[in-house]
Amino acid sequence: MSLDNFFNAQSVAIIGVSRDPNKVGHVIFRNFIDGGYRGKIFVVNPNAENILNYRSYASVLDIPEKIELAIVAVPAEIVPKVLEECGRKKIQNIIIISAGFKEVGNYKLEKKLENVIKRYKLRVIGPNALGVFDAYSRIDSLFLPRFRMSRPKEGVISFVCQSGAVGSSIVDLATAEGYGFAKFISYGNAVDVDESDLIDYLGDDENTKVICLYIEAVKDGRKFLEVCKKVSKKKPIIAIKGGVTEAGAKATLSHTGSLAGSAEIYFGVFKQSGIIRAENLEDMFNFAKILEKCIPPKGGRVQVMTNGGGYGILAVDAMAKNGVELAKLSNETKKELRKNLPKIINIENPLDLVGDATSARYKLCIDACMKDENIDILLIIVLVQTPLIATDIVDILIEANDLKKKPIVVVSAGGEYTEVMRRNLEENGIPTYTYPEDAVRAIQQLVKYYKKSRVVSVTK
Amino acid sequence: MSLDNFFNAQSVAIIGVSRDPNKVGHVIFRNFIDGGYRGKIFVVNPNAENILNYRSYASVLDIPEKIELAIVAVPAEIVPKVLEECGRKKIQNIIIISAGFKEVGNYKLEKKLENVIKRYKLRVIGPNALGVFDAYSRIDSLFLPRFRMSRPKEGVISFVCQSGAVGSSIVDLATAEGYGFAKFISYGNAVDVDESDLIDYLGDDENTKVICLYIEAVKDGRKFLEVCKKVSKKKPIIAIKGGVTEAGAKATLSHTGSLAGSAEIYFGVFKQSGIIRAENLEDMFNFAKILEKCIPPKGGRVQVMTNGGGYGILAVDAMAKNGVELAKLSNETKKELRKNLPKIINIENPLDLVGDATSARYKLCIDACMKDENIDILLIIVLVQTPLIATDIVDILIEANDLKKKPIVVVSAGGEYTEVMRRNLEENGIPTYTYPEDAVRAIQQLVKYYKKSRVVSVTK
Repeated sequence: MSLDNFFNAQSVAIIGVSRDPNKVGHVIFRNFIDGGYRGKIFVVNPNAENILNYRSYASVLDIPEKIELAIVAVPAEIVPKVLEECGRKKIQNIIIISAGFKEVGNYKLEKKLENVIKRYKLRVIGPNALGVFDAYSRIDSLFLPRFRMSRPKEGVISFVCQSGAVGSSIVDLATAEGYGFAKFISYGNAVDVDESDLIDYLGDDENTKVICLYIEAVKDGRKFLEVCKKVSKKKPIIAIKGGVTEAGAKATLSHTGSLAGSAEIYFGVFKQSGIIRAENLEDMFNFAKILEKCIPPKGGRVQVMTNGGGYGILAVDAMAKNGVELAKLSNETKKELRKNLPKIINIENPLDLVGDATSARYKLCIDACMKDENIDILLIIVLVQTPLIATDIVDILIEANDLKKKPIVVVSAGGEYTEVMRRNLEENGIPTYTYPEDAVRAIQQLVKYYKKSRVVSVTK
Repeated sequence: MSLDNFFNAQSVAIIGVSRDPNKVGHVIFRNFIDGGYRGKIFVVNPNAENILNYRSYASVLDIPEKIELAIVAVPAEIVPKVLEECGRKKIQNIIIISAGFKEVGNYKLEKKLENVIKRYKLRVIGPNALGVFDAYSRIDSLFLPRFRMSRPKEGVISFVCQSGAVGSSIVDLATAEGYGFAKFISYGNAVDVDESDLIDYLGDDENTKVICLYIEAVKDGRKFLEVCKKVSKKKPIIAIKGGVTEAGAKATLSHTGSLAGSAEIYFGVFKQSGIIRAENLEDMFNFAKILEKCIPPKGGRVQVMTNGGGYGILAVDAMAKNGVELAKLSNETKKELRKNLPKIINIENPLDLVGDATSARYKLCIDACMKDENIDILLIIVLVQTPLIATDIVDILIEANDLKKKPIVVVSAGGEYTEVMRRNLEENGIPTYTYPEDAVRAIQQLVKYYKKSRVVSVTK
């Protein structure tokens, strides 16, 4: 009973496709048509004959072909019956979008689902879920219209999210910022498939290099611990726990019908299982980016270079605050740089290349640092607003990064002109950050992850 | 000897305009021409007759008209002589862009400047500075080409920044995010005009409602304390201190030639003088936005409403962490909402309006909260990806905010579709945030500021 068909089904039945374009089932149907899904699509609605030129079946039982995945968007009371029909039709993987179960106190109806699931040995995501988006197969059960929520390009981050709203809006935001995704799963009430099942599956998923996780409550603590322990040795898991305070925990009860439990216990489990804990959504993606793109560093010693003195100061402030180690340039490097750099430049860490730094000056320093055995990671701050930085700085950075000798992390803050450069770097495998603090905290996680785990490399 | 002409001069002499379009003086000259400055522009370069069809003078002494502001971009060694000429020409306000003074150990040359300044009673910003950008007069001494660094629209935030690179890149970034500015000043080595003078001036500046400050070291601690004490009663001052750790402090020495001093002393001074301390650049602008836009709250009790349960949880988590008070709905409000909202909605804080919330449902709740004496501030989370939120949510929010009864703060995360809505809200006076945590920490500062100060309102 694999989860594979949730992501790779060659045929899908959408059950509950209304004629009304604003209704959930219709939106999902449209997303399959418009999103580039290459499998076969079947529509189920007993009250229609045709919807958007697709024949509408009264029940999945009437469909003459094999179905690998069903998506259910009918009123809650009908869901058990529909699920039963899926069982009889031998559809093993089912996503239930419909809400109105445990999360509104309707435990009885949710119990009914459990019974059908057991009887037919089904695998079910949901209910009360957005379901699945797979950037490769274009399976897309998210009932958010594509013009309101952009779908991400293919990437290597997978995001497992208990909350549909958090998940979808953050995927939307991250897409606008240029992130790619492998899979996004919002699993709602988790009547069957839970966070641990999904993490376990993603552990073996070739498209997934980094797993992000938003949870309010874990269904089975022991299972979660064991799965995460295993998977975090293969690839990083970054998690946020919603409901860490008393007020937050209270609010989770009415959200997905689960009591959040003590934050300390969760944080203990995170630690034991090798999960990287993020304080907030912004951190989660900042961490995911560095872990996705960077090669493993040999150690934690960071050399900072900058053409803006203030940024260098903010960076080393952040390093001291977060326990990230400042590299000490070797005497050889110092000599070489002293010989080749203008006198006014202090050969230090941070290496302030000052406001009139050219791309060539950066190249000189990057090359020297790449050879220096005292340096494990390069944090390069480039402010491209100054007239002397030419656009070839992008080539210089990408070429240095392509050597795959040491992780390079770039900080660059600005408007449209900066953004074009930043995107280019990111698309070529260099993580970039707007604020030095964010870069430093990401570096901290990178160092920690590879120190702890036996993973050789996340990136190919 | 007012600072007024730095921002409102009707005539400006740019001294050291090269023919080379990449040179500092030329870039500044271009920015005056292209940026919409309405005063008279004079060019000084003894080696040219005409530059871009402007007559070039050998010295300011040759200019037959009165000059209110000089901008100096000549090699460091010549600056004292040029300054002397400005004195003789009775130009009282001078911005020195040129670097190569105290910050590179050339204390002697900086001393020479001091002498000329005293002799002629000049007011000088710089040296080693970007100088001034004024969004209203379009005075713009920033030597960053306009195609690399966008200039902000007119606004009410003024930003005083010791570091040119931090200042300009952050203004560039903030501009792209839709912020408006009144004035931006990068004052470099502060041979004469220092941070305190500028803050004092901005305290009386009608265009400035919020003052942001990045400092590495303060020149005169007592003066700073007194000025900020006075000004922070009139308008909020938000400050970041660069060089708060030992490593950071060490790096400041080679940046602007000033020793940073103990962070604890600075933080003590911030507290005593009513300065709002920001941990990082992101916070600084998040705080500036709420202080710029919101009316003073009567108290600190916040009601959260959301159509994404997870966001509500993250918001109340952040409130508990940051000591922001959850409002308790009055019995009257509870009754009214219970009567009018679907049964599955818990009348609580956070008020989870659930995924099928319409704009009408939001309006109902906003109206009820506006009447409720137990609520001081509304934190409204709206995820517009769901098909049932219509675009009239924007009208509903703006209309409610326009009543000026209680501060409204909005959280909305997403891509392009969300961004259009978010911009609309911001332009109509509602501060918006991507992440609940950021909104909550901004609210914390809003409450703190109005609790402490006797200010009635920053906004008109």
